[in-house]
Amino acid sequence: MIDFPYIGDLCRPTDSKIVMLVVDGLGGLPHPDTGKSELESADLPNLDRLAQRSAAGLTTPVAPGITPGSGPGHTALFGYDPVKYLIGRGVLEALGLGIELRDGDLAVRCNFCTLDDSGFIVDRRAGRIATKESRPLVDELARIEVPGASLSVHQGREYRFVIVLSGEGLGINVRETDPSVTGAAPLEPTALSDDSRVTARAVSVFANEARKRLAGRATANMVLLRGFSRLPNWPRMDDVYRLRPAAIAVYPMYRGLARLLGMEVLPTGETIDDELDTLEQSFEDHDFFFLHYKPADAAGEDGDFRAKVAALQELDARIPRLLALGAETVVITGDHSTPAIMASHSWHPVPLLVSSSLTSGDGVSVFTERGCASGSIGHIPATSVMMLAMANAGKLIRYGP
Amino acid sequence: MIDFPYIGDLCRPTDSKIVMLVVDGLGGLPHPDTGKSELESADLPNLDRLAQRSAAGLTTPVAPGITPGSGPGHTALFGYDPVKYLIGRGVLEALGLGIELRDGDLAVRCNFCTLDDSGFIVDRRAGRIATKESRPLVDELARIEVPGASLSVHQGREYRFVIVLSGEGLGINVRETDPSVTGAAPLEPTALSDDSRVTARAVSVFANEARKRLAGRATANMVLLRGFSRLPNWPRMDDVYRLRPAAIAVYPMYRGLARLLGMEVLPTGETIDDELDTLEQSFEDHDFFFLHYKPADAAGEDGDFRAKVAALQELDARIPRLLALGAETVVITGDHSTPAIMASHSWHPVPLLVSSSLTSGDGVSVFTERGCASGSIGHIPATSVMMLAMANAGKLIRYGP
Repeated sequence: MIDFPYIGDLCRPTDSKIVMLVVDGLGGLPHPDTGKSELESADLPNLDRLAQRSAAGLTTPVAPGITPGSGPGHTALFGYDPVKYLIGRGVLEALGLGIELRDGDLAVRCNFCTLDDSGFIVDRRAGRIATKESRPLVDELARIEVPGASLSVHQGREYRFVIVLSGEGLGINVRETDPSVTGAAPLEPTALSDDSRVTARAVSVFANEARKRLAGRATANMVLLRGFSRLPNWPRMDDVYRLRPAAIAVYPMYRGLARLLGMEVLPTGETIDDELDTLEQSFEDHDFFFLHYKPADAAGEDGDFRAKVAALQELDARIPRLLALGAETVVITGDHSTPAIMASHSWHPVPLLVSSSLTSGDGVSVFTERGCASGSIGHIPATSVMMLAMANAGKLIRYGP
Repeated sequence: MIDFPYIGDLCRPTDSKIVMLVVDGLGGLPHPDTGKSELESADLPNLDRLAQRSAAGLTTPVAPGITPGSGPGHTALFGYDPVKYLIGRGVLEALGLGIELRDGDLAVRCNFCTLDDSGFIVDRRAGRIATKESRPLVDELARIEVPGASLSVHQGREYRFVIVLSGEGLGINVRETDPSVTGAAPLEPTALSDDSRVTARAVSVFANEARKRLAGRATANMVLLRGFSRLPNWPRMDDVYRLRPAAIAVYPMYRGLARLLGMEVLPTGETIDDELDTLEQSFEDHDFFFLHYKPADAAGEDGDFRAKVAALQELDARIPRLLALGAETVVITGDHSTPAIMASHSWHPVPLLVSSSLTSGDGVSVFTERGCASGSIGHIPATSVMMLAMANAGKLIRYGP
């Protein structure tokens, strides 16, 4: 709801603190053998007890039926309409690699691919070559120079890498070179509007040089470029909500996204315990904390029902430590569902709880999909979660006379 | 959600099949003697059993409190915002009569009315004269010729008929001649914008000629013209959703509407058994079927509670046959509610169930208004039903990186 027209008049800074714990891929679906979802199968005494004194509900990340990527799933939770505020693929990949983009930088998501002798694509992902195999290739490509911009090349996972162009007037309106099918040649990265001619020339030179330098290889002998994008210039959470927001997340993509939205990204370690250490240490310095928990989504994406249950239980065991900090408002929800039986993100509504001195339970006894469905918050768009958090924290004044 | 900005990137054709059964006027209200709605009063073992393994919810066709006509009720279910995509009254009436309109044709909904000796309207519907009485009058009017267009006149029910003008440059911006009150004279159909002068002249000549040819009659001695409209040029379901959609409906209006939205309209008979025959025969040729069931609405409109219960039970008995086809996704809902105690369409939310390999029940045990209210889908706009169907059928990829 960062676009609520009067939001600037409604938000007021207070001393009270909000912790928003985003359990990546929180929601699930019942396992066919038991009829119980991951949340229903897990033993979650602390989350259940918290739910019993919270306001509960379900959130829809984008719209019914729409499965969000991690970008839209998170921007929605911070109040940004995920249809209007969509981050480009190149930028999101760059954020995920921990690359610090500057204003005007252009990021491109790239793949190694394999061409046959006639120059037609036989494998768009070059057999998903291992990271250690692609590293020397990336090093070779990093030596390329392009006209009109300075180029950097960044290794990603396996067959993926990112190029960043820095310079003036780098429009993003360039045709992607991936034809999306095999049996076709890579496309020319032609400019689709006048403001993108510099970009088109630079990436065309890059692609041609890459072809020369990779020639002779049996696989990974060409590159495909897509997702031409720049850092967007969006309203910042600190400005709009008048918060001092901080992000605690292990993975670079979430850290980059948080920085983009105006949060201070706090250095932290690799585990939820590290994250909680960070939260404790910086608790006095901020009034809003985005705390990201990844393992539930990772297990769901792997289709590993038991691992997702275990990840939820691991988190549950840390809830007392989180609550002991005494934040006035605690929000726990997810950026989207990741049912293990689908082994992917999904469109299903996501459990939500909001706990503050103004909540005392909705009759919801368990923190599950079905439990939260009957809570007082009802089904709401994820873009409304931030306003509920702000309201519970006493950070929103009355709208209208 | 046909207007979802990225829909072209999200939809992918697959072999899986969706059957959307639209039970016209499905929702109802409790009978005062029993406290039970039509769905609650009916014995629906098959629908209840299906609900027990489905995702359930309620849909709002247009907005809370808004009672939709059949046009908006259906366009919403197919994902078209019923506020933006409104079919003109003339076109809808023409579709309902089975008239095949061509691009550029102008349809006008007409009434016979009764004027007094001074030319003032005493009855805007000419005493609702019987169809057999209006038939010779329509035949007489069909002989009229108008300048700038060719005219056809089509008998409707009782006092209603439709005229269709074919020609070039037939704008729709013409003042309706029905003053909406008695005691006033019919209005002149003046052009309200330059592009509608040809239309205004043609219909003015038609109205004046009609007055002459009907003169001397005690009733039905004049006509009123309204709802000047053309076939809209809307995005087609086959294009946008990348489906091969088919419609199976008995009544012409639904068939015409389906054709307008890009569905192939399959020839069928007069009963639900005929419709199911058609579904079986064409099952391999399409991946989306709109199956329309009218009797529930007809009974509701008649205020016949028992007949509506019976119509729902008739349908229930056919559900096993429908399910036996093995469509991967089955959606059952209505275009609006038609409570028998109101004897009319209403604004009340409409039960919805979505059944697929990804649904396993929400704890909803009966397919009723109250039962579906606690389902996992929650209350959603009817425009989201199509996306849920597509998602369950595996026909939508992830939105955003």
